[in-house]
Amino acid sequence: MAEQPFHGVLVPVLTPFAPNGEPDAGRFTVFCRWLLDQGAGGLSVFGTTSEANSMSAVERMKLLDALVEAGIPPDKLMPGTGACSTSEAAELVRHVIGHDCSGVLMLPPFYYKGVSDDGIFAFVSRVIDKAASPALRVYLYHIPPVAQVGYSLDLVGRLIKAYPQTVVGLKDSSGDWSNTAALLDHFPGFAVFPGSEVFLLDALRKGCAGCITASGNVNVPCIRKVYENWRSPHADALQAEITTLRKALQAYPMVPALKRIVAHFHGDPQWAAVRPPMVPLDEAQSSALIADLAKLGFTLGERPRSMAA
Amino acid sequence: MAEQPFHGVLVPVLTPFAPNGEPDAGRFTVFCRWLLDQGAGGLSVFGTTSEANSMSAVERMKLLDALVEAGIPPDKLMPGTGACSTSEAAELVRHVIGHDCSGVLMLPPFYYKGVSDDGIFAFVSRVIDKAASPALRVYLYHIPPVAQVGYSLDLVGRLIKAYPQTVVGLKDSSGDWSNTAALLDHFPGFAVFPGSEVFLLDALRKGCAGCITASGNVNVPCIRKVYENWRSPHADALQAEITTLRKALQAYPMVPALKRIVAHFHGDPQWAAVRPPMVPLDEAQSSALIADLAKLGFTLGERPRSMAA
Repeated sequence: MAEQPFHGVLVPVLTPFAPNGEPDAGRFTVFCRWLLDQGAGGLSVFGTTSEANSMSAVERMKLLDALVEAGIPPDKLMPGTGACSTSEAAELVRHVIGHDCSGVLMLPPFYYKGVSDDGIFAFVSRVIDKAASPALRVYLYHIPPVAQVGYSLDLVGRLIKAYPQTVVGLKDSSGDWSNTAALLDHFPGFAVFPGSEVFLLDALRKGCAGCITASGNVNVPCIRKVYENWRSPHADALQAEITTLRKALQAYPMVPALKRIVAHFHGDPQWAAVRPPMVPLDEAQSSALIADLAKLGFTLGERPRSMAA
Repeated sequence: MAEQPFHGVLVPVLTPFAPNGEPDAGRFTVFCRWLLDQGAGGLSVFGTTSEANSMSAVERMKLLDALVEAGIPPDKLMPGTGACSTSEAAELVRHVIGHDCSGVLMLPPFYYKGVSDDGIFAFVSRVIDKAASPALRVYLYHIPPVAQVGYSLDLVGRLIKAYPQTVVGLKDSSGDWSNTAALLDHFPGFAVFPGSEVFLLDALRKGCAGCITASGNVNVPCIRKVYENWRSPHADALQAEITTLRKALQAYPMVPALKRIVAHFHGDPQWAAVRPPMVPLDEAQSSALIADLAKLGFTLGERPRSMAA
């Protein structure tokens, strides 16, 4: 098994859009730098939370160019390369490798449903072969609630066996703890990241590498505290606190809610913009969300008061 | 309501791949010409059956360039513009308009699930606005079994009202006759095409424009016979015969099966190639399929013997 470049709290970074609807590289860079300053272990730009699939491949590549040019360290980047075609996925992967990023987060092809493990294996295999780089590190992105198509336990095992130096980890956004636990049990040394911090402590106790979580966009420090203190007697209390915040967020559509929070606490209303098919929170939802957070003592980038020692 | 450019049996054309896995423009052009010679009323290149979403936007645009350059009449083309981002969808739409094709077949954005009608409306609206052409004719592509995201009856009504000269029809691949019937009842003059010939006669009796069907790739003449003779006393018998063939095909994965049939009857094994995540039929399935067709007296491009008068 290859060396693991990512650990800790990874963030699938929200993508800001300018008033004309175009991706906003300036705001994006500032936000990525702030997340790293907050203690993020890595940035999974172009994930589901990033509205990556609401951007073309060209838009994503230009944003990555801008990030790296602005000095965001590429070894902290695990860009998503989600695409339904081997041709586009391979193009995205080659672009990421060209920037010396430490890994890619790879969705399975998600248009056709009911596809076989053999078909998904052939897809990943063709993309890896086309990328043709020993530097490539693939993190499989398992998110059946959205993609519908996923990586079964058996398929993960086949991919690890076929590409032991390349297929080195997985983000599990199934929301199914038994699947995360099975991955950790079956594939020691393989970097498993739960897709929600709700499972972080349980997963750390079974050897996970950290988590990749949407709420990292607004709560890296507290989630990181669980990661760093999972052996401490206070670990369960720390976990309970981040779970409480996560559940408060989950009462709203996640991406519009996170963007609303960033807009509110950064004092930048443009951050609330989403691309279709997503819709922003309306005023009533926005007010309710901010009120819910106030009740928890939440302030962006700081520990909610309820989490004070 | 705008004038309707498409009628009859439209075919979502299979896409041939060369031994190196690349789209094969030569075979594609020959096949498109043959389908028109068989009596196809139009060609929905780049639909689900075309494995369009297993090709990048660039690959699709190059194939369309090749078709038009080879002399396939653009007024017979309704290319699919399926994409999850407004940016890519708009680019594909502009490319189709640039070739003077008579319409586009537009999937809703299909990555994010549980999106609202408002979100899908905003998506279609933004793409139409970006295309900025009075020549654009949009056929909505409703295929919830695959895309999961679809166009509700209410949303269709809103889009027709907002864009009466642009949103002029819909392909209904829901497989739900009650939905097709409701569309025909609610929107007279709107061109509704069932996505399977199984519903053709029933839909013609309610005023549909024809059908857009995968099995058109191998059976245009017989399906067209129903379209042309739906008022005849033999219409139900003709319908029963095309339904029988369709049901025989549906016993196999549709796209690999259709490609196997083309490979067999055109004597060109390369036609059986599919792109991941699809997998070709294995030898046993292929033999069983060809045997099933023999029992029905099927020959590509001719009427099955069972359909002889």
